[in-house]
Amino acid sequence: MSDILYDFGSGRSDPATFPTERLKKIAVEVIDREAEALTNYPGSLGHKGLRTAMAAREATREGVQVDPEHLVLTNGSMQGVTLTAEALQDQPGDTLILEEYSYPGTLGAYRSLRYDMVGIPLDEGGMRMDVLEHELTRLNREKRLPKFIYAISTYQNPTGFVMPRERRLEMITLADRYGIPIIEDNCYADVHYEGEIQPAIYALDDRPEHIYLCSLSKILAPGFRLGYILARPPMLNTILARRHDAGPNYLASAIAAEFYKEGIAEHAETTNPPLKRKRDLTCEGLKAHAADLCAWSTPPGGLFVWVRLPDDVDRNKLYANAQAKGVNYLRGSSFHYKGVDAPYLRLAFGHLTETQIIEGIPVLVKAIRECRTSNEAVTYTSLFED
Amino acid sequence: MSDILYDFGSGRSDPATFPTERLKKIAVEVIDREAEALTNYPGSLGHKGLRTAMAAREATREGVQVDPEHLVLTNGSMQGVTLTAEALQDQPGDTLILEEYSYPGTLGAYRSLRYDMVGIPLDEGGMRMDVLEHELTRLNREKRLPKFIYAISTYQNPTGFVMPRERRLEMITLADRYGIPIIEDNCYADVHYEGEIQPAIYALDDRPEHIYLCSLSKILAPGFRLGYILARPPMLNTILARRHDAGPNYLASAIAAEFYKEGIAEHAETTNPPLKRKRDLTCEGLKAHAADLCAWSTPPGGLFVWVRLPDDVDRNKLYANAQAKGVNYLRGSSFHYKGVDAPYLRLAFGHLTETQIIEGIPVLVKAIRECRTSNEAVTYTSLFED
Repeated sequence: MSDILYDFGSGRSDPATFPTERLKKIAVEVIDREAEALTNYPGSLGHKGLRTAMAAREATREGVQVDPEHLVLTNGSMQGVTLTAEALQDQPGDTLILEEYSYPGTLGAYRSLRYDMVGIPLDEGGMRMDVLEHELTRLNREKRLPKFIYAISTYQNPTGFVMPRERRLEMITLADRYGIPIIEDNCYADVHYEGEIQPAIYALDDRPEHIYLCSLSKILAPGFRLGYILARPPMLNTILARRHDAGPNYLASAIAAEFYKEGIAEHAETTNPPLKRKRDLTCEGLKAHAADLCAWSTPPGGLFVWVRLPDDVDRNKLYANAQAKGVNYLRGSSFHYKGVDAPYLRLAFGHLTETQIIEGIPVLVKAIRECRTSNEAVTYTSLFED
Repeated sequence: MSDILYDFGSGRSDPATFPTERLKKIAVEVIDREAEALTNYPGSLGHKGLRTAMAAREATREGVQVDPEHLVLTNGSMQGVTLTAEALQDQPGDTLILEEYSYPGTLGAYRSLRYDMVGIPLDEGGMRMDVLEHELTRLNREKRLPKFIYAISTYQNPTGFVMPRERRLEMITLADRYGIPIIEDNCYADVHYEGEIQPAIYALDDRPEHIYLCSLSKILAPGFRLGYILARPPMLNTILARRHDAGPNYLASAIAAEFYKEGIAEHAETTNPPLKRKRDLTCEGLKAHAADLCAWSTPPGGLFVWVRLPDDVDRNKLYANAQAKGVNYLRGSSFHYKGVDAPYLRLAFGHLTETQIIEGIPVLVKAIRECRTSNEAVTYTSLFED
């Protein structure tokens, strides 16, 4: 493998906006003030100050009143994904429902727990409700209703789309019909560029089955390994009963709590504009170089552009060719719930410099052209067209 | 419940020796130097510097060469306990072996995973090998050999005893006879007061089945939530395949790495003497006030004194009476693998002040005397005598 010059692989935010100087000041303050607390175990919910700050974050964004005692800090949102799936599982082979294309970390955890996954096709509004209804009916008939529905309904990973409010309400109705919890992973929520913000499913239905996952990785940094779960009793207790790590990291929590004590808006106003600019550069690059070749999403938030390749691209050859040219991306198969190879790839644009994006997109497009078996122009009416 | 004045409950080290000033300096240095790394995911092994420092720690103490690439940082040693049990489980109902009295955190995790636990009685040398051999023979005959043996062989929690080298070798021979991994939890290892240090089981047998767990909670602080697993391939890969939290906390790891880059001896020389003094005060208090009443361990390291109560103490009444007098402790039943109530209690002495220990022990002993049904003096030849 040659050196990677254009790494569109991993979903990370912009390192240039990491608030180094403020965090240095805060760390000193916090270690001093919370020395005694650091010599204690943090409890299974974790640092009260950070729970309060994150509850306020949710209230502001989603208009839902969140009790900090119903908020569980986790070791990144991935611990939330894994812990909730563990807590809801009776035995290996249990069924779950999720989007046909979803976050590879989640897929890996569910595979490892030996869940039987049922994938629901996506369109520009997220998970398709007609198919969800059909599958729930079928699974109910087969007496293997899913333990839960996992959905990334805002800035979906990998597609970038947002589920409209109406569809969220449909999903709630379907889930409630069978008493199935929805695990809503909203970890990109604050990486917002434009358009109306849709309320979280968790905010639209206060029945106690549902679970909400969020992260501080996208608004602060992955190295802090902080995320959280919202859940109401008795679901909250079911989840806590499965937690056996003696609680989340207190030091990182205390620093993040101080950093966000006035809310997250100020920092988001610093971090989002450069990300929006990178999203624009990515989409403009595709428009300039691949308009006759590909379709792609223009996500109103989040960190990913989902690209539909022409059917006649040899996708193994493309991956090797792109790597040889210094371009890294994640293949469509990484996101498919059954690992099926499909004509897609995902571009994560947050961590590259603007110059890397401007230079990298044409290199990728050249690689795609070299791996086609025809020269015909391609036009899609939908990113999800077969 | 009245206020707790004398909290012998939780196993914590001495808050007075928490290195606040040094950590403040280090935090500033580390956030500055590792800002870019903090915006990355830490990988499933975690911070290289801390892995290198902890590998050196193990080499110094146990004389075993540890490759930092075979060391997995975890969210406290409890994540190590849970993760290894998850990785080694085929299905709920699988058997495991452990000490009859063990760490409640571990018991809770194993119960939650629905392991079938087989407890082996203890004596002053730890797990009894005659019973282990007998149980392994029986389980082999019943075709349900354990997935692993979990043992706290040094400063055993709750008893405080150390397993002698000869017995460690016997245990290895028995485990190897059936190809069973030993999960050795050595999280108190550096809290050493006196006597010869016994080598870790992991250091005595380099076959790749065995697993070693350790912690930074006892030598630094629980709020850092740092521990680690040692395991060699292919066991290492089995464990990593079950990890789905996107890696351990990088910020806390980076600070701990800098703190321990010259080794852990300097800090241990600060933290251990006050703990030894507290152990002495606890045991001297028992000798002065309960010599006719109880037997107890005098642990050469670790944070706990295990106390044998007279048989005629009403243990429910005692717990309530002690709480009413302001004394907290953990009951014997908390440590029993089946939760069986037995005439024991555990005193954790690390977190109290010397004055609290001096004052608290006579209060506890008074509570014990008040809950007896006779006044006869009691003499045990062994802490483990029936």
